[in-house]
Amino acid sequence: MRRRVSWFLTKLQGIFVPLLTPVDGGGELAEGELRRLVSWVIERGAHGLYPNGTTSEFTRFTPAERRRIVEIVTDEAAGRVPVIAGAAEANVKETLAACEAYARMGVRSAAIVAPFYYKLEAEAVHAYYAEIARHASIDITLYNIPAFASPIDVPAVRSLAHEFPRIIGIKDSSADIAFMLRMIADVRPSRPDFFFLTGSEAALVPMLIAGCDGGAHASANVVPELTRQLFDLTRAGDLDAAMRLQFRVLKLLDSMLDGFDFPDGFRAGAEVRGFHMGRGRQPQSQAQRTRRAKLVGSVQAALAKFELEPNPR
Amino acid sequence: MRRRVSWFLTKLQGIFVPLLTPVDGGGELAEGELRRLVSWVIERGAHGLYPNGTTSEFTRFTPAERRRIVEIVTDEAAGRVPVIAGAAEANVKETLAACEAYARMGVRSAAIVAPFYYKLEAEAVHAYYAEIARHASIDITLYNIPAFASPIDVPAVRSLAHEFPRIIGIKDSSADIAFMLRMIADVRPSRPDFFFLTGSEAALVPMLIAGCDGGAHASANVVPELTRQLFDLTRAGDLDAAMRLQFRVLKLLDSMLDGFDFPDGFRAGAEVRGFHMGRGRQPQSQAQRTRRAKLVGSVQAALAKFELEPNPR
Amino acid sequence: MRRRVSWFLTKLQGIFVPLLTPVDGGGELAEGELRRLVSWVIERGAHGLYPNGTTSEFTRFTPAERRRIVEIVTDEAAGRVPVIAGAAEANVKETLAACEAYARMGVRSAAIVAPFYYKLEAEAVHAYYAEIARHASIDITLYNIPAFASPIDVPAVRSLAHEFPRIIGIKDSSADIAFMLRMIADVRPSRPDFFFLTGSEAALVPMLIAGCDGGAHASANVVPELTRQLFDLTRAGDLDAAMRLQFRVLKLLDSMLDGFDFPDGFRAGAEVRGFHMGRGRQPQSQAQRTRRAKLVGSVQAALAKFELEPNPR
Amino acid sequence: MRRRVSWFLTKLQGIFVPLLTPVDGGGELAEGELRRLVSWVIERGAHGLYPNGTTSEFTRFTPAERRRIVEIVTDEAAGRVPVIAGAAEANVKETLAACEAYARMGVRSAAIVAPFYYKLEAEAVHAYYAEIARHASIDITLYNIPAFASPIDVPAVRSLAHEFPRIIGIKDSSADIAFMLRMIADVRPSRPDFFFLTGSEAALVPMLIAGCDGGAHASANVVPELTRQLFDLTRAGDLDAAMRLQFRVLKLLDSMLDGFDFPDGFRAGAEVRGFHMGRGRQPQSQAQRTRRAKLVGSVQAALAKFELEPNPR
Repeated sequence: MRRRVSWFLTKLQGIFVPLLTPVDGGGELAEGELRRLVSWVIERGAHGLYPNGTTSEFTRFTPAERRRIVEIVTDEAAGRVPVIAGAAEANVKETLAACEAYARMGVRSAAIVAPFYYKLEAEAVHAYYAEIARHASIDITLYNIPAFASPIDVPAVRSLAHEFPRIIGIKDSSADIAFMLRMIADVRPSRPDFFFLTGSEAALVPMLIAGCDGGAHASANVVPELTRQLFDLTRAGDLDAAMRLQFRVLKLLDSMLDGFDFPDGFRAGAEVRGFHMGRGRQPQSQAQRTRRAKLVGSVQAALAKFELEPNPR
Repeated sequence: MRRRVSWFLTKLQGIFVPLLTPVDGGGELAEGELRRLVSWVIERGAHGLYPNGTTSEFTRFTPAERRRIVEIVTDEAAGRVPVIAGAAEANVKETLAACEAYARMGVRSAAIVAPFYYKLEAEAVHAYYAEIARHASIDITLYNIPAFASPIDVPAVRSLAHEFPRIIGIKDSSADIAFMLRMIADVRPSRPDFFFLTGSEAALVPMLIAGCDGGAHASANVVPELTRQLFDLTRAGDLDAAMRLQFRVLKLLDSMLDGFDFPDGFRAGAEVRGFHMGRGRQPQSQAQRTRRAKLVGSVQAALAKFELEPNPR
Repeated sequence: MRRRVSWFLTKLQGIFVPLLTPVDGGGELAEGELRRLVSWVIERGAHGLYPNGTTSEFTRFTPAERRRIVEIVTDEAAGRVPVIAGAAEANVKETLAACEAYARMGVRSAAIVAPFYYKLEAEAVHAYYAEIARHASIDITLYNIPAFASPIDVPAVRSLAHEFPRIIGIKDSSADIAFMLRMIADVRPSRPDFFFLTGSEAALVPMLIAGCDGGAHASANVVPELTRQLFDLTRAGDLDAAMRLQFRVLKLLDSMLDGFDFPDGFRAGAEVRGFHMGRGRQPQSQAQRTRRAKLVGSVQAALAKFELEPNPR
Repeated sequence: MRRRVSWFLTKLQGIFVPLLTPVDGGGELAEGELRRLVSWVIERGAHGLYPNGTTSEFTRFTPAERRRIVEIVTDEAAGRVPVIAGAAEANVKETLAACEAYARMGVRSAAIVAPFYYKLEAEAVHAYYAEIARHASIDITLYNIPAFASPIDVPAVRSLAHEFPRIIGIKDSSADIAFMLRMIADVRPSRPDFFFLTGSEAALVPMLIAGCDGGAHASANVVPELTRQLFDLTRAGDLDAAMRLQFRVLKLLDSMLDGFDFPDGFRAGAEVRGFHMGRGRQPQSQAQRTRRAKLVGSVQAALAKFELEPNPR
């Protein structure tokens, strides 16, 4: 059992890193690199960690591997920052078991992506989260990513936030700022403790202005210093500097998005920063491997403009 | 020929009203009400007017009616504010003729929606605007509304802005803030005079923070005072007040969006403010008419909270 | 006033040609070529003609040009085959005026595409057709093309067919065979006279087996003999031969679809058969013009395999 | 090791039942009911079985449960009909392990759904299948279901069929008949042994006419006699009778589709036929449970029209 720490009683906020999952030459989980990545992003300002998210390629790991990943991450974080861990498994029973295990590991909240593969209607999405919230042994974070999973709509968020104190926030990767505003408008008055994290790193500054408590961004695996700086500048009210940095980071971000199946461009970016990410578990075409090799050079060039500190090795 | 006025030499910015088009009991253009609406929104702070846009239901009027509408609007505006007029006709030749006519009427810029009905590939969209820009007798504003027309992508905007000084800005109704940031990042450095208007009224404040020069919003036909206030508060740097107002306006906006085929909810809203909008040209089901009748009450209630000045009659 | 002919009293069926619209070097309607095309497709077996459809690029012509086109087509057809003419104008009043004009020209039925640009909900689409059907002076054909216009759903078709004898059929370009079956299942029992034309030329034979009365296909401008043969073989019950031809025609079809904004590939195809189609009214990029020039060669090669009769000139 | 049977050397064809997965009151796999369902559908004419498909809700079971399901199905089938078993696991390594296990159980082919959650580009989908085909110990069936998983495009099917004899067919649930024709046109000439199963039960007869070798249909869990009859009538060339039955079955099918998250309506249908399906693993809203309860009555009424034999108990 982990020690209780200060952040356990406060609202979650700031930059959470949806951790990439390094693998070795044989495709097996590379524990050492994952530990190194965890400490490296904490040292560069991450407010929290988010293993088993979309960036982590959670669907490409087995249930046992997903647990092992959270174990490593919580152990390495050692209470320095809170951990939100993706806990969606095949069904409610398995998900609840993962929640229980993660609670024991000291995870702050279990993030549950909306049901995917099948596209469920809104009321079924609500029923799914309600069933989990009624039985969970840990605080629940909703995770909306309509490009990949059944959408969570505003009425569902409102009703779930109203009914279940155990549901404490939402990570929204819809990239839809009006949707974010509508959620905040409906939920915040009665649940000021409910947090809103955006997945939209291209528009982090405007999203924070709109009321988000923070974000969870793939690029925070590559340039955690800059993502943190975007947050700090915005919170400090220096919007001119914040937006200038936002535009610069956007170019870097797009270099890792365009032409790559997510999140492979970010895996290449993390390699530029000195991590051995491995080939990934999704087979790639020859053309994809060629593009990825080229990316290393362009990310290096892009990073050079930021005067970041040298890589760890 | 209209007199040259100060705004002719400056970059367009601020709140443009995409004018609703009032019709009489027989469905004919209601010139008097249109004139009254024009002056009313100018007096309440509109920085500019935008007839023949999506809110104006331009596709439901004949080419001759569209010209008559612009004639009325420019005449009534009488140089008080700039007019951007929708000029997309059946083909390039007809569009250029409309541009020429509008130039003579004193229109500041012709807004050309991307080709619709057919969904064209990006290079054809570019070719279309290039052909118009090469021959236009008036400054051109691009109009991107991917829900209804072929999308204009970032490379097309960048290339058109680079090639054609005659293209002076874009109205973007994609509601995609990351798209807006990407356009601004690519275009502004070399074309600081190029303006960006957002159609996203639900997120006007964050869009302005992101760098937009202003917006064109259906609700500015109903509460021009509030849309203007959102702009002024944001420009003045009072973001707390701006966002508080943004959230309040959002509720009003949604009451006119939900359950209505655009823009009928806004037509009902304008009626609450004292304008005779008529039934509109799109036939409605009995259920739609019932919902619209109910809307009047809920908009009245919503408006009551804002302590707006009484209606003109 | 045209003479009454036998097909006026019978259910419409067979292959209707959605006529391409030839233009001259200046982009003006090329009346002579249009007349030549009309007679050429009739002589090669077309059961009917369909001017002002999507293939005709009706949106790129002015209201006056659309009328002129129908005038030419009915005059040239001279009662040899029935004409279904696209009559959708800016609003119901204009559409009804076009219907009246077309009725006087001897048009058999006015095809009305569902409202486009705005995406209307199902009940509004129903209300639109109901309003037209109540006042039309000509039989109405519904036209469903959900890729480009508001979708017409099965309940709307059922209810419209039930309420309005004046609505006599539907052209469906959804390419969704289950949708076609659902419409037929719901409508045919009570309206055996209601006809179903498919726009899906890639699957004409299965669509006919499923119960369609015929089709309206862009490629019938290029190979009317073959489209007619597909129909005849299927109706004669020779499905093996029909499907063999279907597969061969598919390759030809795809050569005119892939890489071209619709219907430009078909315009190139018609040129191969000897018609001067002109450049079209939609500006094209240099890359598009290059692809189009190449297409001529590949269509010629594809046509060579079919041993068609030599071109008219 | 199972005995080799006649169908092992012949091309797969006919009606495959994508088996629903019964659970008990506690949500656990109901082995007895699954066995009963297997034998019942075989006795009513199923040509093959398809466990761990979309209808089976494969994503809602654990990897261990998925294996147990295939074990039960192959054991109960006992070589009477071939089994195609869904074998997609978290990644290629796990998938290959499942393939190996299924081969030992006597499964005829492993069906691998295209990568889901992440939407991959076409070349990555190809690379994924190529990697599996290079190492698989069992014949592979592609599974295209673009509504839920990354789409497999025609060039990928053509290239995979050309390169890998181990890939022996495709189950296509796109419901796009033109796509089916394009695949058949490209693959059959060089791979006459490659089979095409459609998931489109609403259009089974036209799909068979188009060249499909058979289908895999959720409703075959409810009315296997009728699905088989559709196949037999079509193959016998009695298209009039086949289409009459197709239209009747369509109504029954739609009663199980409309208003239900797939495949819950079919689970209710199987209950009407006498199977205890259990509540399913996806939590449902109160409204959903009410609709489901009502469905039982309407399916009973629909089935009454078909004079099927009485339920097994």
